[in-house]
Amino acid sequence: MTTTDTTDTTAAAADTSWDERAAALDAANPLAARRELFLLPEGVSYLDGNSLGALPAAVPAVMSDAVHRQWGEGLIGSWFGEAQWWELPHRLGDRVGALLGAAPGQSIVGDSTSVQIFNTLVAAARLRPGRGVLLTDAGHFPTDAYLADSVGELLGLRVERVRPQEFAAAIARHGQDLAVAAFPAVDFATGERWDIPGLTRAAHDVGAVAVWDLCHAAGAFALELDAWDVDFAVGCTYKYLSGGPGAPAFAYANRRHHALMHQPLTGWTGHAEPFAMRGTYTPAEGVGRARIGTPTILSMLALEAALGAFDGVDLDVLRAQSLSLTGFFIECCDAMLAERGFTLVTPREPERRGGQVTLRHRDAATLVPAAAARGVVGDKREPDLLRYGFNALYNTHADALRAARTLVELVEG
Amino acid sequence: MTTTDTTDTTAAAADTSWDERAAALDAANPLAARRELFLLPEGVSYLDGNSLGALPAAVPAVMSDAVHRQWGEGLIGSWFGEAQWWELPHRLGDRVGALLGAAPGQSIVGDSTSVQIFNTLVAAARLRPGRGVLLTDAGHFPTDAYLADSVGELLGLRVERVRPQEFAAAIARHGQDLAVAAFPAVDFATGERWDIPGLTRAAHDVGAVAVWDLCHAAGAFALELDAWDVDFAVGCTYKYLSGGPGAPAFAYANRRHHALMHQPLTGWTGHAEPFAMRGTYTPAEGVGRARIGTPTILSMLALEAALGAFDGVDLDVLRAQSLSLTGFFIECCDAMLAERGFTLVTPREPERRGGQVTLRHRDAATLVPAAAARGVVGDKREPDLLRYGFNALYNTHADALRAARTLVELVEG
Repeated sequence: MTTTDTTDTTAAAADTSWDERAAALDAANPLAARRELFLLPEGVSYLDGNSLGALPAAVPAVMSDAVHRQWGEGLIGSWFGEAQWWELPHRLGDRVGALLGAAPGQSIVGDSTSVQIFNTLVAAARLRPGRGVLLTDAGHFPTDAYLADSVGELLGLRVERVRPQEFAAAIARHGQDLAVAAFPAVDFATGERWDIPGLTRAAHDVGAVAVWDLCHAAGAFALELDAWDVDFAVGCTYKYLSGGPGAPAFAYANRRHHALMHQPLTGWTGHAEPFAMRGTYTPAEGVGRARIGTPTILSMLALEAALGAFDGVDLDVLRAQSLSLTGFFIECCDAMLAERGFTLVTPREPERRGGQVTLRHRDAATLVPAAAARGVVGDKREPDLLRYGFNALYNTHADALRAARTLVELVEG
Repeated sequence: MTTTDTTDTTAAAADTSWDERAAALDAANPLAARRELFLLPEGVSYLDGNSLGALPAAVPAVMSDAVHRQWGEGLIGSWFGEAQWWELPHRLGDRVGALLGAAPGQSIVGDSTSVQIFNTLVAAARLRPGRGVLLTDAGHFPTDAYLADSVGELLGLRVERVRPQEFAAAIARHGQDLAVAAFPAVDFATGERWDIPGLTRAAHDVGAVAVWDLCHAAGAFALELDAWDVDFAVGCTYKYLSGGPGAPAFAYANRRHHALMHQPLTGWTGHAEPFAMRGTYTPAEGVGRARIGTPTILSMLALEAALGAFDGVDLDVLRAQSLSLTGFFIECCDAMLAERGFTLVTPREPERRGGQVTLRHRDAATLVPAAAARGVVGDKREPDLLRYGFNALYNTHADALRAARTLVELVEG
């Protein structure tokens, strides 16, 4: 980290002026009331919402209704009756799409992120027949990397992996041979945010298709998929969207690709006439052709309830709060942890990070669970990273301060 | 239908001796107490459990615990803490596997049936490189047909569709060129049951791999996947297993294929070291490599609760009850409906049907909802089929009699 304001970091950690600042910042938070929309365990500073979001207070009643009334009473009739289960992939797709800057009719919810990545990468590559390269991030989340390789094997594409600093140069280098560029919006390990509009333009400049993984972006800050002319995007809903463990993923397909896109997972629910039970596949018009199998209703209804926590939230306000939280945490770390073997991994510039701050420490693997045992929940990534995720709907500056102080206590012994 | 015992079918329908027989059969049902394990709506004869099983009584409390304690309190810790979410695909796989005649370690639960079909068909075909044909059922459920075509397109296989009567001949005809034979255990429309062990042997005789769709078989009758030397099987858990709307599917892979099988959906959870976050995919040992993305926990926990209804059930007793129900329904139909424009589609021989009885009537599309409005819930398949599914854990002979009588009332006007 950079030089700190005080060389006596133990004194810094104990300094009550930090508490006063945290309290003032939390008092000024325009989203403070949103915290009541989550059921957080007493005494826990939960800074792992970038892995699994906390439980939204609206979920339990909705789940009870889903089980008792919709399933138990409505039975098979709930697919098309009042509950309208059949429409959930579209209904939720548009709800999530609104948080992505996507006009209705371009997003669906269902299946896992891994499945959506595969389906989308193949559909994207098929839009550029004859091109030979699938470009992806050498530091991408593993499932993205593995599925890019699998798609390369199936379609005969060469998969090239580059570091994000080389994204633009690699796009230009491959030129007309580049079929698909598949990148993350935010690096899962470092928390660094990449330039979606700029890299999408670069891909379009050589006629390639851009696919974005928004797992660490959706719900963390405003996105403008339509305005940025993104081709395809996928992401999960269990991190910043707090949809629940393994909540279904989303897939966005820009309207201009709908007529030609040809997904490999031609499940029956993506058929133009699913209940006609035809022997051959005719894809539905629009984004409906990205639907796959029977949607997993209980998990989808939990997500629907969870999304209510975003109703009426201005995503620019949310982003400002998120940056205030991560910025304050970085300040605390600078003052208290810089001389204790911790390095800041996440970029210091606000526009270059998402909602997560990553630190490096050689004892990360033991420090993270030790902090969790003291009520500060984050996570670790091998070999030496500590990740702390801030969800502006429920985290506080007091959480940030406590996290830094807890790490001080642990390294002080 | 065949000739009935009485030409006066209106009298037959009114005959109270039917009620006495139904009551006697229900009184003698060794599984009668199981009905209490389901929360069935008052006054409804639910004969659509072959589409969506009824709500098991154990589910609501488990879902409440899943949401409040496991997610809300346990948060990220539930993946590896007491809740052991991470192991759910295996834990549930073995629970379902026990109902399929599969020894532990060969079945996993997750994703939709459509996704599992795709993943399995590709893995199966890759075990037979150089062979050119994927053989499937011309009357297969649409998603199976669509995904076979998709796999054929991706792998360069010719997909041939034959009627089940021709399965064995087609297998022999293709001989060494047959890569995969993919059939349903029970026809979703007609309810006819096919010969899994015989057709699996026929496929093996030419060195092909047999893939079975067990959607309409799992939980309906005993299966012996290991003893029959089945290669791969997939199926859903929301029909006879009553796992809930869109409950995750299962996939079985015979142990002898584990070392070589190579699924295309190489999601991170199927990696040998998923948390090492390696850049390249190394499949897990065993059936774990069939895991794909992050499992959809809430839906999986509902299924786990639902499977408790099978604890201690002898599947031969269940099958005997199921045949008693479907046999009695066929008797009722013979006596009451044969002269009213209904034709029995499902085979009359017990060994040739699953848990479903299909009738044909030109007004099926209006009769099915009209019967449902009178409390007899079944479903229709275009253009003229009525499907009534019997789940021996909660359906009664009284349900069967009521269903036949309701159809009589409707056609009598």
